Amino acid sequence: MITRADAEALDAADPLAGFRERFVIEDADRIYLDGNSLGRLPVATRDRLAALVAEWGTRLVSAWEDWIDLPAQVGDRLAEGVLGAGPGEVLVCDSTTVNLYKLVRAIMADRPGALVTDSGNFPTDRYVLEGLAESSASRATRTGHRELRQFDADPVLGPSPDDVAEAVAPGDVALVVLSHVAYRSGAVADLAAIEAAAGDHGVPVVWDLSHSVGSVPTELHAAGARYAVGCTYKHLNGGPGAPAFLYVREDAQTGLRSPIQGWFGQAEQFDMERPYDPVPGIGRFLAGTPSILGLAAVQEGVGLTAGAGMAAVAAKSASLTGLVVAYLDERLGPLGFSLGSPRDPARRGAHVALRHPQAWPICRALIERAAVVPDFRGPDIVRLGVAPLYTTHAELFDALERLRDLVERGEHERIDATRSRVT
Amino acid sequence: MITRADAEALDAADPLAGFRERFVIEDADRIYLDGNSLGRLPVATRDRLAALVAEWGTRLVSAWEDWIDLPAQVGDRLAEGVLGAGPGEVLVCDSTTVNLYKLVRAIMADRPGALVTDSGNFPTDRYVLEGLAESSASRATRTGHRELRQFDADPVLGPSPDDVAEAVAPGDVALVVLSHVAYRSGAVADLAAIEAAAGDHGVPVVWDLSHSVGSVPTELHAAGARYAVGCTYKHLNGGPGAPAFLYVREDAQTGLRSPIQGWFGQAEQFDMERPYDPVPGIGRFLAGTPSILGLAAVQEGVGLTAGAGMAAVAAKSASLTGLVVAYLDERLGPLGFSLGSPRDPARRGAHVALRHPQAWPICRALIERAAVVPDFRGPDIVRLGVAPLYTTHAELFDALERLRDLVERGEHERIDATRSRVT
Repeated sequence: MITRADAEALDAADPLAGFRERFVIEDADRIYLDGNSLGRLPVATRDRLAALVAEWGTRLVSAWEDWIDLPAQVGDRLAEGVLGAGPGEVLVCDSTTVNLYKLVRAIMADRPGALVTDSGNFPTDRYVLEGLAESSASRATRTGHRELRQFDADPVLGPSPDDVAEAVAPGDVALVVLSHVAYRSGAVADLAAIEAAAGDHGVPVVWDLSHSVGSVPTELHAAGARYAVGCTYKHLNGGPGAPAFLYVREDAQTGLRSPIQGWFGQAEQFDMERPYDPVPGIGRFLAGTPSILGLAAVQEGVGLTAGAGMAAVAAKSASLTGLVVAYLDERLGPLGFSLGSPRDPARRGAHVALRHPQAWPICRALIERAAVVPDFRGPDIVRLGVAPLYTTHAELFDALERLRDLVERGEHERIDATRSRVT
Repeated sequence: MITRADAEALDAADPLAGFRERFVIEDADRIYLDGNSLGRLPVATRDRLAALVAEWGTRLVSAWEDWIDLPAQVGDRLAEGVLGAGPGEVLVCDSTTVNLYKLVRAIMADRPGALVTDSGNFPTDRYVLEGLAESSASRATRTGHRELRQFDADPVLGPSPDDVAEAVAPGDVALVVLSHVAYRSGAVADLAAIEAAAGDHGVPVVWDLSHSVGSVPTELHAAGARYAVGCTYKHLNGGPGAPAFLYVREDAQTGLRSPIQGWFGQAEQFDMERPYDPVPGIGRFLAGTPSILGLAAVQEGVGLTAGAGMAAVAAKSASLTGLVVAYLDERLGPLGFSLGSPRDPARRGAHVALRHPQAWPICRALIERAAVVPDFRGPDIVRLGVAPLYTTHAELFDALERLRDLVERGEHERIDATRSRVT
C-alpha cells in the first residue's frame, strides 16, 4: 500500500521541488488540484504586473516601443522553450477560440470539403467548427456551407490514429481539429501518428494544445505538426483570461491569410494610408491591439515552465498522476470509483478522471468540507489536475486521503449539491 | 491675445478639475497630449489591479464565480454611464478589430450587397472590411465575394450625411462602417443624421466609437444607432490593449449570430456535451475566455468617466480644443501651421490636428526636447489630444508655447527625424 512516506520520498527526490516557492501559496492546507483550469499566480508575475502598471503610468504611449513586439517575443520563447517549435512560428494573442477561428478559416480558404473533429472535443472547438461549417455568410449568399463531421473516439483513450485515418479516408476532408490532451479523460493523442495518418491523405490537422502545453511534451516539429492553438492560463500560469497562442510552422505560413485583417498584422503599421498588406510570416495573424498586461503575465509564466524544462515537467506530471492511479487501484475502487483516464503514463496528461456516479456532490463536498479543489466534468467525473511546478506528491496523497475519508463517511450525501457554475 | 492667466481662469472654473488627482501623474512637467492613443493610469486602477492579482493568487478558480459576469457588467455600466444605451446592449471583450469583424460578418449574413466605408476611416476598420469583402472562403469555393466601396469624405470635416446618402443610393449596399470621430482630423460625424440617411434605404450603419467614447456625447439610443464597437484604452483609460466593446441595440439582437462561436457565448456554458446554442441577447458575441485583468481595469476607467458625466466631459473637451484653435489662430499661422480639424466645436472631438509640412520632425522635437507628447499622423499632422479628465488648460497653453518657441527657434530642423514607430 502506498503511504504518505512514499509520497514524501518522491518529493525529496523531485528535481522541480524548488519551483513551488516561486508561486504565491498563502493557504497551503487548501490543496489545489485545478491548475488545469486556472494555474496559480507566480511570484514573479505579481511583481512584473505591478512594474508594468507603473510603466503604463510613467512611460505612457512611449512604452509601446517595447510592448509592440511582445506577441512575437513571448511566442518565440514559448516555441523554443516549451512547444518544440522555432522562432517566427508562434504568436501570443487573442483567445484560443479566436485563434482557432482565424486558423481554421484561413486553411479552409484553400481547401474545400468537410471539417472533422471528435465529438468529445472541448466545447469551444466544436462550437467554432459548427459556426464555420454553417458559414455566417450562408443566409445572404446561400453559399459556403460545409459539412461538419464529428466522429466518436474512445471516451477514455481519446482520438486514435485509426480514427483519423478512417475519418479522412473518403478524400473529401478539408481539415481535422483535435485536442492534444482530452479535457475530460486527460488522454494524450499521438501527435506524430495522427499527423502521419492525416498526412497520407494530404489533410492538415489543427491541434488544440490547451491542456497539454506546459504539462506533457509537445514536440511540434518532431511530430510533423503544422498548425496549433492553445491557452496559457492553465499549465503556463498566465492568469485568468490571459492571451492564447497560435502556431503555424514556417513552411505552412506562405499564402495563409487571416480572415480577421487588423492593423497589428499590417506591414508598416503606422503608414496608415494604404490598403491591407499583411506582414510576412506569422505576424499577419495579429488583429487588434494585444493585451499588454496579459502578455507580460504570460511571459513570466512561460519563462517558469521553459526554465524547468519540458522533460522534467512531463516526468513529474507522470509521477503525480501515477500516484493517483495507484491510490485509486488500492483504495478507491470499493467506494465506487473507477479510472476514466488512460492507464499508460505515456498516454496520460496532467489530470486524472476519477469516475463516480455521485461525482458532482463529491466535488462540492471536497471543496466545501475538505479543502480540496478538484473540478467536475459531467456527468460523472471528479477531475484531479496536477501541476508539475507546484503540486507535491505529499499534498496529492493528502487530497486522496481526504477524498476517501469523505466518501467513506458519506459526507457528500449531506451537502447541498445544487449545480452551480464551475470552470 | 490669449494668456496663461486666461487658461488658469478656465481651470479655476472647471467642474472636472478634481479628477486630475485621480490619475497617476509623476512628471507633471511632461505635458501629455496623447491620451487619445493611450489614456493615463487611474490611481484606482493601479490599486484594483494589485487587488485582482492577489485575488487570483488566493481565490484561484473559485473567483470565476465573480469574474464571469464582468463582460456584461462593465458593458452595462458603459452603456448607461457613457454611451446612452441600455442594459444588455454592450459587452466588453476582445479587441475593436475582432468585435468589428464579428459584428459586420453577423450583419452581412442576412444582407447581400456591397460594404461601404470612407477612405479616411481608421486603418483597422478598412482592413477588416477588405478581408470580409474578399471573403476568406473565396479561393476554395469561389463564392462569397463582396464589393468594398470606399468613398472620399472631406479630410477635415469627415463623412457627411450627404456622403452616406449618396453611397447607399444605388440600393445594393449591405452596410456602412464609419468612425464617429475621425482619427486624423477629430471631426465628429453626425450620428443621427447619418443614421437617418442610411435608414432611408434600410441600410445599417456600424459605428467605430474608438475616438469618441469618453470624450464627446455618444447618445446611441437618441441617435437611432443600432451597432457600434470601440476601444477603451483611449479616453476610457483602460490600459494598453485593454478589451474593447461591442454594442447591439436590443431590438437588433434577435437572429444575429456571431461568426466566432465560442464557449463564453454558449447557453449553459458548463453543460458541455451539447451542440452550440447561443445565449439569448448580446452575450452570444462573447467568444473565448475574457481577459479579467483587462476587464477590471476597464471597469475602473469607465467608472471615472461615468462619474464625471458625459455632458461635463464634452464641455471640457470643447473648451480645451477651443484653446488650441484660438492659439493657432493668434500665433501659429505665421509659423506654417493650419487647422486640420473642424472649426465648429460641436463637430470637433477631443483632439486637434495642426497641419504643418514638417509635422514629423516637429513631433519628434516636441517629445525629445520640449517634454510635450503629441502624436504624428502622416503626412503632415501634429495631433494634440486633450483628455477632459486630466488635461488642464494651463498645461495645454504651456505646450502650445513650447511648440511655438521650438518652431520659431528651428529646433525641429536640428533633430534626427528618422521615422520610428509611434502609436
